[in-house]
Amino acid sequence: MRAKVRLLDLYSGRYAVFLNPKDAEEVKLHPDDLVRLESGKKTVFGSVVISTLVEKGEVGLSRDVFKLHSFSEGETVLVSPTGTPESVRYIKKKMQGKKLRKVEIESIVKDIVDRKLRDIEISSFVTSLEINGLDMDEIAALTIAMAETGDMLDIDRKPIMDVHSIGGVPGNKTNVLVVPIVAAAGLTIPKTSSRAITSAAGTADVVEVLTNVTLELDEIKRIVEKIGGCLVWGGALNLAPADDITIKAERALSVDPRGLMLASIMSKKYAMGSQYVLIDIPTGKGVKVESVDEARSLARDFIELGKRLGQYIEVAITYGGQPIGHTVGPALEAREAMEALITGRGPGSLIEKAVGLAGILLEMGGVASQGMGRRMAKEILESGKAYEKMREIIEEQGGNPDVKPDDIAIGDKTYTFTAPSGGYVTFIDNRAITGIARAAGAPEDKGAGIELYVKVGEKVKEGDPLFTVHAETEARLDHAIVFARRSEPIRIEGMVLQRIGNI
Amino acid sequence: MRAKVRLLDLYSGRYAVFLNPKDAEEVKLHPDDLVRLESGKKTVFGSVVISTLVEKGEVGLSRDVFKLHSFSEGETVLVSPTGTPESVRYIKKKMQGKKLRKVEIESIVKDIVDRKLRDIEISSFVTSLEINGLDMDEIAALTIAMAETGDMLDIDRKPIMDVHSIGGVPGNKTNVLVVPIVAAAGLTIPKTSSRAITSAAGTADVVEVLTNVTLELDEIKRIVEKIGGCLVWGGALNLAPADDITIKAERALSVDPRGLMLASIMSKKYAMGSQYVLIDIPTGKGVKVESVDEARSLARDFIELGKRLGQYIEVAITYGGQPIGHTVGPALEAREAMEALITGRGPGSLIEKAVGLAGILLEMGGVASQGMGRRMAKEILESGKAYEKMREIIEEQGGNPDVKPDDIAIGDKTYTFTAPSGGYVTFIDNRAITGIARAAGAPEDKGAGIELYVKVGEKVKEGDPLFTVHAETEARLDHAIVFARRSEPIRIEGMVLQRIGNI
Repeated sequence: MRAKVRLLDLYSGRYAVFLNPKDAEEVKLHPDDLVRLESGKKTVFGSVVISTLVEKGEVGLSRDVFKLHSFSEGETVLVSPTGTPESVRYIKKKMQGKKLRKVEIESIVKDIVDRKLRDIEISSFVTSLEINGLDMDEIAALTIAMAETGDMLDIDRKPIMDVHSIGGVPGNKTNVLVVPIVAAAGLTIPKTSSRAITSAAGTADVVEVLTNVTLELDEIKRIVEKIGGCLVWGGALNLAPADDITIKAERALSVDPRGLMLASIMSKKYAMGSQYVLIDIPTGKGVKVESVDEARSLARDFIELGKRLGQYIEVAITYGGQPIGHTVGPALEAREAMEALITGRGPGSLIEKAVGLAGILLEMGGVASQGMGRRMAKEILESGKAYEKMREIIEEQGGNPDVKPDDIAIGDKTYTFTAPSGGYVTFIDNRAITGIARAAGAPEDKGAGIELYVKVGEKVKEGDPLFTVHAETEARLDHAIVFARRSEPIRIEGMVLQRIGNI
Repeated sequence: MRAKVRLLDLYSGRYAVFLNPKDAEEVKLHPDDLVRLESGKKTVFGSVVISTLVEKGEVGLSRDVFKLHSFSEGETVLVSPTGTPESVRYIKKKMQGKKLRKVEIESIVKDIVDRKLRDIEISSFVTSLEINGLDMDEIAALTIAMAETGDMLDIDRKPIMDVHSIGGVPGNKTNVLVVPIVAAAGLTIPKTSSRAITSAAGTADVVEVLTNVTLELDEIKRIVEKIGGCLVWGGALNLAPADDITIKAERALSVDPRGLMLASIMSKKYAMGSQYVLIDIPTGKGVKVESVDEARSLARDFIELGKRLGQYIEVAITYGGQPIGHTVGPALEAREAMEALITGRGPGSLIEKAVGLAGILLEMGGVASQGMGRRMAKEILESGKAYEKMREIIEEQGGNPDVKPDDIAIGDKTYTFTAPSGGYVTFIDNRAITGIARAAGAPEDKGAGIELYVKVGEKVKEGDPLFTVHAETEARLDHAIVFARRSEPIRIEGMVLQRIGNI
């Protein structure tokens, strides 16, 4: 049938296509049937909703679909039922434990991006990958297919460096230091980051406190070609869009099949044209990768995958057993990072990690000789050159380069937890720290988070402050206090365990 | 937040909960988040849609949710975000190939019925079952959980018999004869049937030509206690509702995990209180179970499952290599079944199968001695007692008991295919026959279908009629003719295979 497009003001997280009951009956369409909309060169797939909110002869599109595919109100489209997509056969093949061919993987990825596959099929694919896995041929094909179904960046400066931290360790603002150090050394590093999904602050959330992170791809190209680096939000770009779709199923099921994880990370690097990639795998209790053995196995996979993609990859296994630095939460972390850039000094866990990672990149990129990268990175940081580069990044991305740490607004509703007894700090629980910061409102409330006064191994006296919770509202602060009392964020040797809930 | 319920006239195939953007922002809800609605004793789960179609302070519910849970317009409900359901952990456990405990299976089934699990989670469960399977303990637990989360029937007449045919063979109106024969012998058989899903006519579609099949459970109880049998549509009842939900994922993925198939069938029998169940497994090319070995293995599973459920199960492996009788499609099959009941005679494939199955049930139920069931069933059919019982069933269910075969309207747009050459009929393709009947409009168009003039082994001369397609509209007839020309519904020995498309 032909129908006129009508904009419906709704967001449902899926591609909904509203049809009038009379039209639906005529073309024998039922709720949630898959349909194809065609108009000129555009072809979009969606799920039928039957409703009198649209008149006969109209097709209602939700605001997101409408915008994404630039339909215009009143435009005539052809609506037709469509059968089971071909790629469902390949998902079934993976269910049967068989190896998928390159064209089969391409077909699945294309149908995901085209929205021909919906929650049911995507969840089945994710589940099949979790159970039956993918071999390195399949992962390489998946990575390339995911990159090529989205936008690709071609920066006219070589070599292109990149760095990526596997998530999970709270307070990890390290790359806010690494990128300006590496760019200040003359290398090219177009860094895209994610926002927090389950953490209290992603790198994009932290940088957003300082400058704009939502940029178009051609704007990024211009900036990086001019100053050598950027710190932007990858989610604003159409990089490997299949990943943004499959992540929904992975989150709902709390699974993260390794093949999909590797493809998800590397497809974005591939799309950005990265040639030398450093992968940081924080390892320790309460982060994604808990054991060094697991980290090593993952490292081998990254390196092997890099070879297939024509990328040179190195992996740094770092300590992730407690938060990095003393702050957790977007504004608090932005403040700590800026202080480190301005003064060249800061908490050992932050400075050492940043110059360690940056040093490896300087060696990979050939600007430091073997074994000299770390020292060179430290010099760049201490000399203020990294800060200068950070000012350029902030300015080019649309922020105020003169921003000072004290200018950054921190949540002013606070509560400080103190040590119930004296002793050594034996353990800081990453998950509890993240949970408290999120309960306080992070990452949405930029000023929410935690300031930590102690780290593992330090000695405290009874009554010493352990950490302060910052929130933007009293309600959120109360919420975080309740959460903190129920969990055990900091363990002090000799403390009566049963009383920990009362600190 | 508290909000006033507002009815939205839409059907989306899911539980959609519309919130105004302002409310959504306040309670930090995003599109497709899972929310709980509470009002008095009712608790309903649904997926967030953000839209200005509802005002601030309102919650919009789609018509199906509204009706199913009897909300009233303007009623105040409590809307709250809800985290990942507990049962997702058990789905993950099955992904890991572990055996599920009874309580874990109960939790999954309850969350499916409560709509706490949505497409993503249900698809993952189905996929995990397809890959990792279920053992008999798990299948029994699943069956009981599926039955007990729906309505259960308690008929005050024992023993309760039941019969179920595994689908796939076209023209299988057998149970329209079996039920009145068994009930006429004094046994109790509260038969529920499904509508066609992928076939041209389910038993419920066929019986609906003769009488009403959409009855309430207490009405069924009254009828069966009075006359011993019924022929109703199971889909109108709230029997094992989890099955109606999981089937969506199974269909989209075209999988049918055995454990789920067994539980799906037997949960409905269990809910109907059936004690003696005969399972008919048609076997042959183009039906669900193609080999006798597979049928035997399935039969053993049914019998074993019956033991765990306290049911006595027998299995009949029947011939399903070609259509049963001479008709395919609701009205054509209803006519053929009524003719057989009235005259006691009909096509061998129909009569033999019906008295064979009925005979086994008569022996199982103890009214015929061993080896005498078939003869007794035949006598009941030929004596007109089965027809008398059928008249009672038609009348009690609200139809006209005097309906005659010629009263039944058949699609009057017809086209007859003839033999392109003489020879023996060597093969009739079940899938092609079903496809043509569906292309002609079956099962929605009751009068659409196929009349077959030949069966496998019969000799035809060039130009002899092979089959007639019936449709209610010219468009549908054309559609079916095109479909028939493209497929190879009937193969005649000696025919030039390349020309089959032109018959």
